[in-house]
Amino acid sequence: MTLDLCPSPALYPFYRKVNDTVIVVDIFRASTTMCTMLHNGAAAIITVPAIEDAIQYKSAGFLVGAERQTRKCDFADFGNSPFDYRREKVLGKEIVFTTTNGTMAIEMGRESRMLYIGAFSNIDVLANRCMKDSDRVVILCAGWHNRINMEDTLFGGAFAEALSCRGEITHGSDAIKIATELWQKAKNDPLGYLQKSDHYQRLINNGVEDDAAYCLQHNTVTVVPVYNSADKKIRASV
Amino acid sequence: MTLDLCPSPALYPFYRKVNDTVIVVDIFRASTTMCTMLHNGAAAIITVPAIEDAIQYKSAGFLVGAERQTRKCDFADFGNSPFDYRREKVLGKEIVFTTTNGTMAIEMGRESRMLYIGAFSNIDVLANRCMKDSDRVVILCAGWHNRINMEDTLFGGAFAEALSCRGEITHGSDAIKIATELWQKAKNDPLGYLQKSDHYQRLINNGVEDDAAYCLQHNTVTVVPVYNSADKKIRASV
Repeated sequence: MTLDLCPSPALYPFYRKVNDTVIVVDIFRASTTMCTMLHNGAAAIITVPAIEDAIQYKSAGFLVGAERQTRKCDFADFGNSPFDYRREKVLGKEIVFTTTNGTMAIEMGRESRMLYIGAFSNIDVLANRCMKDSDRVVILCAGWHNRINMEDTLFGGAFAEALSCRGEITHGSDAIKIATELWQKAKNDPLGYLQKSDHYQRLINNGVEDDAAYCLQHNTVTVVPVYNSADKKIRASV
Repeated sequence: MTLDLCPSPALYPFYRKVNDTVIVVDIFRASTTMCTMLHNGAAAIITVPAIEDAIQYKSAGFLVGAERQTRKCDFADFGNSPFDYRREKVLGKEIVFTTTNGTMAIEMGRESRMLYIGAFSNIDVLANRCMKDSDRVVILCAGWHNRINMEDTLFGGAFAEALSCRGEITHGSDAIKIATELWQKAKNDPLGYLQKSDHYQRLINNGVEDDAAYCLQHNTVTVVPVYNSADKKIRASV
């Protein structure tokens, strides 16, 4: 099993190989939130890159989660906080979802053999899955407007550790080695470590620092969100 | 003074701001080698992206350094080893230079207010210069075929340290924070640390590991290579 990390959606063309399994991560908060939606019983997630698309879906009667620059869009039912998507609201529903960076990363990875959504929330179930079904896995970090970020990189290092507990892995390039180095430094206190990160500061400034703590908890859900290229929806696989 | 790091030439559009001073680094080996050329008295460096351009210059009588995939091109006078560019060969000459990644990074940064070439070789003289003439500095890493690498990232952390000895600096984004974390881990033995990096392995495989040791030495030269946008040549500034 080879593991690599692509630190920005814009770089995926340079990391892509045939038969990649891609794991899209946007730890603060889109990928964590998608795990929560499906764990709480949402039937599917339809990700859309543009606000205009989300507004159209809203007009057509869909439940819509929409965020830009860390804030919930006014027209939407939900923002990008995992706490928004309570079971009684989402059970059995299809949720349309657009966020600043996460949905762009999904766009970039759409054509891979397999596309999963990853987070600390589902790290172990995802590692089990990848050990079974993948020869090469690329963690595709959502980053921030195509710039790299600390929390998605850290997840890469944590995932490398999770995989290497389960079997032998090869590092695909320096990117995953850098992530691993960073995780070794941060793992005893990821929340403390990430207080120096840009996006933690943005969350603080928007009063949602509780989201950050939740987003760093391991194994709070048991689902692997899987992108289906036939209908472009993301559904839970247990 | 704000310092940021752009980890791949392809990402520079997302890091660029008006009035950036850009420092192009390709530690193994192009930026180190350019410092050596100018330190040894070369009159100027003309970087060209394509091999075909370099061949044309060669036909026109220029001295040419050309490398692809870690190896010297057959037609060229020099490869990408700093040891190739001895004083008796380069003194007073204009050198045409093309390498796998370094020249591409220069292409991306060409339009910045100021473009310097940086390496461990000139780290202190470069830090002095930037403290005097720049409000915002972006270290533009050459990487490897637009993928990020460890040695250029490490330089970013080392440069942050060099600047912060000279005054107060602000981190522009997570990228320079990651670089700083990495450098703090590596600084006691950068050569040992980088033995896990991809490009160190490539250098070993090509029998040029002595280059790696040289490329990590601090302050072996006293020049700052400066790109001149009027004639597109790089010259020494002491």
